[in-house]
Amino acid sequence: MKIALLGYGTVGSGVYELIEKNNESIQENFSKDVRVERILVNNLNKYKTHKAFNIFTNSFDELIKEDFDIAIETIGGIYPAYDYLEYFLKKGIPVITANKDLIAEKGPSLLEIAKSNNTILSFEASVGGGIPILKPLQECLAGNTIKNISAVINGTTNYILTKMFNDDISYEAALELAQEMGFAESDPTSDVEGYDAMRKLVILSSIGYKKNIKWTDLPIEGISNILKSDIDYAHSENYRMKLMAFSEDMGDGIYGTVRPVYVTSQSKYAKIDNEYNAVILEGDAVGELMFTGKGAGKFPTASAILGDLLDIVQNKKKHPSYHYQDSVHIHQYYPRKSKWVIRLTNGKLHELTRLLFESFSSNAIKLSKDANSDILYVQLVAENEETLLQQLNQIAHTANCKYKHFLVFDK
Amino acid sequence: MKIALLGYGTVGSGVYELIEKNNESIQENFSKDVRVERILVNNLNKYKTHKAFNIFTNSFDELIKEDFDIAIETIGGIYPAYDYLEYFLKKGIPVITANKDLIAEKGPSLLEIAKSNNTILSFEASVGGGIPILKPLQECLAGNTIKNISAVINGTTNYILTKMFNDDISYEAALELAQEMGFAESDPTSDVEGYDAMRKLVILSSIGYKKNIKWTDLPIEGISNILKSDIDYAHSENYRMKLMAFSEDMGDGIYGTVRPVYVTSQSKYAKIDNEYNAVILEGDAVGELMFTGKGAGKFPTASAILGDLLDIVQNKKKHPSYHYQDSVHIHQYYPRKSKWVIRLTNGKLHELTRLLFESFSSNAIKLSKDANSDILYVQLVAENEETLLQQLNQIAHTANCKYKHFLVFDK
Repeated sequence: MKIALLGYGTVGSGVYELIEKNNESIQENFSKDVRVERILVNNLNKYKTHKAFNIFTNSFDELIKEDFDIAIETIGGIYPAYDYLEYFLKKGIPVITANKDLIAEKGPSLLEIAKSNNTILSFEASVGGGIPILKPLQECLAGNTIKNISAVINGTTNYILTKMFNDDISYEAALELAQEMGFAESDPTSDVEGYDAMRKLVILSSIGYKKNIKWTDLPIEGISNILKSDIDYAHSENYRMKLMAFSEDMGDGIYGTVRPVYVTSQSKYAKIDNEYNAVILEGDAVGELMFTGKGAGKFPTASAILGDLLDIVQNKKKHPSYHYQDSVHIHQYYPRKSKWVIRLTNGKLHELTRLLFESFSSNAIKLSKDANSDILYVQLVAENEETLLQQLNQIAHTANCKYKHFLVFDK
Repeated sequence: MKIALLGYGTVGSGVYELIEKNNESIQENFSKDVRVERILVNNLNKYKTHKAFNIFTNSFDELIKEDFDIAIETIGGIYPAYDYLEYFLKKGIPVITANKDLIAEKGPSLLEIAKSNNTILSFEASVGGGIPILKPLQECLAGNTIKNISAVINGTTNYILTKMFNDDISYEAALELAQEMGFAESDPTSDVEGYDAMRKLVILSSIGYKKNIKWTDLPIEGISNILKSDIDYAHSENYRMKLMAFSEDMGDGIYGTVRPVYVTSQSKYAKIDNEYNAVILEGDAVGELMFTGKGAGKFPTASAILGDLLDIVQNKKKHPSYHYQDSVHIHQYYPRKSKWVIRLTNGKLHELTRLLFESFSSNAIKLSKDANSDILYVQLVAENEETLLQQLNQIAHTANCKYKHFLVFDK
């Protein structure tokens, strides 16, 4: 079986090496000779010393002179990846991709193209790196109604937050460290603003709830505004801060978000540190399941692609025949009663305190002043986010202060 | 599609209810009308008031007068379950089972029968209840060489050990509590002696290492000899005790065991309490993955069976075409350098101490005497279990004392 490999970065080279390594055992077990026939790259010169230099090309037109049985895409980004995948799918050639941006953005239309050309599009590697999550969700849990999904699913931000917590450093210093370690890109926007996590959440949620959800419809907040004092507060309460991606089927719509939250030290997420990812799924029959592992990296991601590849080699994969619901109502605010931490700045302490006790009199309120600044942290319980914001807006207006609110996530 | 349901206990009734509940959505998504056509039970009288009483039968001969598309077995035990499954497989009818005893004992021969009759045998529910584990291992991780597998995979013993630790009670009292709560059977042998965990470990290990392993070939130790003082010792060291099932591909053979071990409070297993199960798989490409959830119960187990069922409904399932290696060397002793805890009884404290320091002089040794008895606990590091046992046997002989050794498991 001839493979077209698009892209030869971290993931692409991992896929190539893993196929080479497994070639013999695949032959032994499945009686198929699976090999990468051609590799598409931007800059040919970089691979002049590669032992398989003769199979590299920098021209898609050149590449497709060959016939292929499978295409694997590891380029990333929307274009030209979309055009390439469309080309293969329209020829009925199965495609495997690790491209979460593309799947979150164009997944439904690509799946439609695959279906109408009687071929398949596989993208296990697009969420959670090597952690098997899409197949378990779609196949093993097919007898469940999925109630909610939560995840720490972006390694870059989790590394930064872990470093801030463990090493007592600022966001900027932790980001720099992440960039030095290769955990963050030079333009870290997609990670630190939560876009990457949101795309993955939307892939999981669309499959889980069988609804087409647009990732840009959901409220997103990243970690670039997290202060050292927010982390100090976590220490003082024995909390951790996590960039949490979570969604819930509310019956009349979906609530889904990516946002920095506090979790207690007893939380299942409390020890998911550094580059580790974790996903918790709740199904009505199975209850809560948790999946943990490295969410990125050369070989973990290549491992997921190999899993998809060996399904295709065995002719095991069919396109999912679920009917996805197209229009879905999105709740913009966290709809459940919960504990919140509010960071208040620039207000007069005395007045703020009075206003807070007036507004939230019936709830347990806990105030702490940051030792090194005029920042006040308040912990309180609110019925839902919308009413909380109304009250906080009023207080901020009256006391002429700024605030930022953090959910205390309860898983 | 007509289903024959064999058995209507906890799992069987869960399967029936879940199929009823999902019938409409299955029809909507897959255009198939999936229904339980007949149910085989021992005692018909128990179901006289069941709304579907007319489909119950207590005769297999009567049952098979009907034609079926799928058989689901939830009876448990080796016979007559084996004969029933053999009958269906030989007719080319796909079979789903939750029966770990049967799969651990007769899995290879049943898979052979399925293969030669061009049908399939599915058993996701046999390990870890609703936790998707066999399919992720077999399919998603197919590009990996599996290095080792570990698991807390028997809910009964985990419940008992959790209760002993949290409530400071004896093994006997905790077992009684487990029986009252329905977590342990009136004859708890299979659970407390580790047989159930071993069968599941062997199913996982056979698939993971692609080798046919006999569960009776591996060393097993249950929890019926755990003393309250062993748990007190766990408290004093901030350890937990877990009945751990683990195996490792040593290259020249397999080491696999079920045994009570200590884990530190930092262990990934430390918080897997009560009826929860957890499995950690290490693959060469993917690294370590952890799967956690409820390992038993009516709907979690039925959830796994529904997953298998919907694969068959979609004609998605093929028999695994791996070639399993038939004869495999089994290592009987833990082969790695590790920390151990030794419980010593009936010896003279002074002499024991002298002998221990003589034997293990080069290693860090830590002694603690149980406050309420003459039991001595020793913590030491040994190169491997075999040499440790030689030294301990000599000490026990010289000092005329008894000992029991516990691995401090390092995951």
